[in-house]
Amino acid sequence: EVAAAGVNRADLLQRLGKYPAPAGTPQDIPGLEYSGVVAEVGAGPSQWKVGDAVMGLVPGAGMAQFVAVHAREAVPVPRGMSLEDAAGIPEAFFTAYDAAHLQCRLRMGDKILIHAVGSGVGTALLQLALAAGAHVTGTSRTQQKLDLAAELGLHEGILAEGGTFCPPEGQMDVVVDFVGRGYLESNLRALKDRGTLIVVGLLGGRADEINLGTILRRRLHIVGTALRARPIEEKIKLAQDFAARVVPGFEGPSPKFRPIVDTVLPMKDAATAHAQLATNGTFGKIILSW
Amino acid sequence: EVAAAGVNRADLLQRLGKYPAPAGTPQDIPGLEYSGVVAEVGAGPSQWKVGDAVMGLVPGAGMAQFVAVHAREAVPVPRGMSLEDAAGIPEAFFTAYDAAHLQCRLRMGDKILIHAVGSGVGTALLQLALAAGAHVTGTSRTQQKLDLAAELGLHEGILAEGGTFCPPEGQMDVVVDFVGRGYLESNLRALKDRGTLIVVGLLGGRADEINLGTILRRRLHIVGTALRARPIEEKIKLAQDFAARVVPGFEGPSPKFRPIVDTVLPMKDAATAHAQLATNGTFGKIILSW
Repeated sequence: EVAAAGVNRADLLQRLGKYPAPAGTPQDIPGLEYSGVVAEVGAGPSQWKVGDAVMGLVPGAGMAQFVAVHAREAVPVPRGMSLEDAAGIPEAFFTAYDAAHLQCRLRMGDKILIHAVGSGVGTALLQLALAAGAHVTGTSRTQQKLDLAAELGLHEGILAEGGTFCPPEGQMDVVVDFVGRGYLESNLRALKDRGTLIVVGLLGGRADEINLGTILRRRLHIVGTALRARPIEEKIKLAQDFAARVVPGFEGPSPKFRPIVDTVLPMKDAATAHAQLATNGTFGKIILSW
Repeated sequence: EVAAAGVNRADLLQRLGKYPAPAGTPQDIPGLEYSGVVAEVGAGPSQWKVGDAVMGLVPGAGMAQFVAVHAREAVPVPRGMSLEDAAGIPEAFFTAYDAAHLQCRLRMGDKILIHAVGSGVGTALLQLALAAGAHVTGTSRTQQKLDLAAELGLHEGILAEGGTFCPPEGQMDVVVDFVGRGYLESNLRALKDRGTLIVVGLLGGRADEINLGTILRRRLHIVGTALRARPIEEKIKLAQDFAARVVPGFEGPSPKFRPIVDTVLPMKDAATAHAQLATNGTFGKIILSW
């Protein structure tokens, strides 16, 4: 039974018909993540019982009153955390953990550049990169978000005015991009030789010019990643890995991680939530709660 | 003391001033690889003694009468192989081994697409991919080269007429590209979801359009690689690994690998060799011999 669901840019795109839900998923209910309590358990042995607090990703309809998920794709809500806060975890932290840790294998001492560091996934990446001992540079379009990110531990902030940024040249082991079009050349310039650009989102557009000579000569890697279209076995593997390695970091008296929640609104105010996200003025997640 | 040296396209580019040798390397003597005999050994213990047959890569001037190389960068000439044949190994097989095995970790059952499969590095990739149990598709601009490659074990040949090719869609785990401009879209289309395009050369040009949406949605990897500009410790590591894992495959009564040599010419006929390579009519390597 869904208690709350985080709002994502994909929800806005889906509403506009630009990001259709996968086959078998309702097209008219947005939502890529949920928190809630187990209302019913399928046949056979299970790690869950009715009433357990769980969270996770869904291919769509996360803003329904109930979702049906595979038992091994649900992740326990961190002990002591509200269901509203937990609804801000899955999309941001699964994406960040997968990109930085599973795909790029971020290591102590790596330098990472995180665009839109004040976004839900940006603030998750920041926390997960710091926990790995990385040196973190972040971009944002407003100084206020850079200041808030600095409170979370951001080492260096770059103000990206007018949709561009001036990269530190040849310094990054990893660049995480959500922008795409217009950022590709600068992102590659920011990388060290043998560095990796991971493409997680394309808010700025898809098509761009690429200089393959730079890729070859400087031995760069470009990696694309997306969670939504993965087959069930990969989603389960990610959920299980996340539960074992990341969830404990949200627990205890001084947790390493916390979902950065900008606003919690009642589910009926979904339109307001979408409008707020579209302003780019929020820091962290917007949550819709039943 | 150099006995022979393979001719590479980089030599032609260097002659035209388009691929300058690295600092500290003579600009006016081409050559990226050599075979020969040890004429002198530096101070200290060494695995080599005067008269040993060796081969390897150099950043330039491989077509000099003598080259000075780090002892650990030289690789033994396979037992029973002529120095002329051995001169056709380093650039083609080091590049192929590094690209397919070290960078892409080619595994049994992988499907790989090799462009210019009749070239020196193409024929090396073909042999190394077959030895790993991969299924190999190759392109060439002439049917005759596809027929010759089929004799080496090529599973499927694609005639690339007019500088384009029609890729099998979504089937390849790995695509090895030497062309660059004009091939990028087709190369990405040929990949399976999560497949890797490795960029080893750019005969067609550097700049191209890229659809980052394809990269993201299909979770593709693009990897650039080049041998020449690597630091000494990486070059040594590659040479040592190659000596241990690949050289034995050239030896014995039924060797797995052999350098495909089109022509051996005396060193004074370098101009003829360059002209022959430029025609794209050769199958395998052209060797210049002292």
